Amino acid sequence: MPAQVVAKLRSDARDNRERILAVARAAFAADGLDVPIREIARRADVGVATVYRHFQTKDVLLAEAFAEQMASCSAVVEEGLAAGDPWRGFCLVLDRLMEMHALDRGFARAFTSQIPEAVDLAADRDHTLRLLLELVRRAKEAGGLRRDFVLEDISLALMANEGIRVESPEMRVAASRRFAALMIQSFQANPVLAPLPPAVRLPLSRR
Amino acid sequence: MPAQVVAKLRSDARDNRERILAVARAAFAADGLDVPIREIARRADVGVATVYRHFQTKDVLLAEAFAEQMASCSAVVEEGLAAGDPWRGFCLVLDRLMEMHALDRGFARAFTSQIPEAVDLAADRDHTLRLLLELVRRAKEAGGLRRDFVLEDISLALMANEGIRVESPEMRVAASRRFAALMIQSFQANPVLAPLPPAVRLPLSRR
Repeated sequence: MPAQVVAKLRSDARDNRERILAVARAAFAADGLDVPIREIARRADVGVATVYRHFQTKDVLLAEAFAEQMASCSAVVEEGLAAGDPWRGFCLVLDRLMEMHALDRGFARAFTSQIPEAVDLAADRDHTLRLLLELVRRAKEAGGLRRDFVLEDISLALMANEGIRVESPEMRVAASRRFAALMIQSFQANPVLAPLPPAVRLPLSRR
Repeated sequence: MPAQVVAKLRSDARDNRERILAVARAAFAADGLDVPIREIARRADVGVATVYRHFQTKDVLLAEAFAEQMASCSAVVEEGLAAGDPWRGFCLVLDRLMEMHALDRGFARAFTSQIPEAVDLAADRDHTLRLLLELVRRAKEAGGLRRDFVLEDISLALMANEGIRVESPEMRVAASRRFAALMIQSFQANPVLAPLPPAVRLPLSRR
């Protein structure tokens, strides 16, 4: 085969791979992790065999689709741990996670879902959760975070954030910011009234 | 027609009406307010004409489907207003709304959606919102509720509550209770650390 044809074939394969990943990410985010491979193939406009050529199993696809979000998430938690004040670090993490989540629903799905066979993803998540647990421990010890806070409260906050359905991404971020500030307020060990980001116009308003 | 036949026809019509209402409530709650009449007829196993015989327009059906929830909601707010301490009344309302909402998703949809033509429902909702605004005013004046609280924060809390998707209704109520307590904590004007209801086991846990 001439070198040009080989190069073209390789470039097509790379395009396919990227397209499948983008479609998978969007599909898992919008419709959950149960979307079957054949539906992803259909939406990516490739054959099922092509999907399996790039990703041996659905779990591999899941892991790769969410690898980027998981890495961002991990980076945020590491940033929080690096903050001098662990309580400030904790607040930063919560605020950033909520913002990321407001912009990309798939993110929390990857983080909070049980994906038992997606080994790589599970290992990454366990690593991030270990860091998060360490940050929580330090924030409690420093007297910033209330003692009865549990890791599930972050889950609760992220799930709750998912319920805030507002049309535009800008408004979603604005609503999430206020919501994150309220949650942070409620997690304080020695609560002090802190100002809130502006409220967002939502349906429950008298007209 | 013999009296017995007339009675039977009346009883069938009543059954149909109740079934259509039950199906409509479930459909609007699960799939939003856009579910078309013909789909509701299909699920209720009646003809489209039968639906229109009982409910002249879709807005009439919407209003009737949510009349009960709206009445419960109104009753809760009135109970809150009747409480001696307006801040305690406010907390009671938030806690009860979240619990009702955890058990019946349709409720908040009815309350937070714009249903411009469902006049009766809109009037009921406006009445309830007026009561709620009065409670908010009093709770702020009494120094319990923070000054920068706005009605949209209840919307935010209810929408967020909808994001908390847990399988069993019992766990959903338990998660909503903790969430409501956290929101109440964050709404305090002079925050004091109050104990929280127990945490609920949620996906984000290290296995």
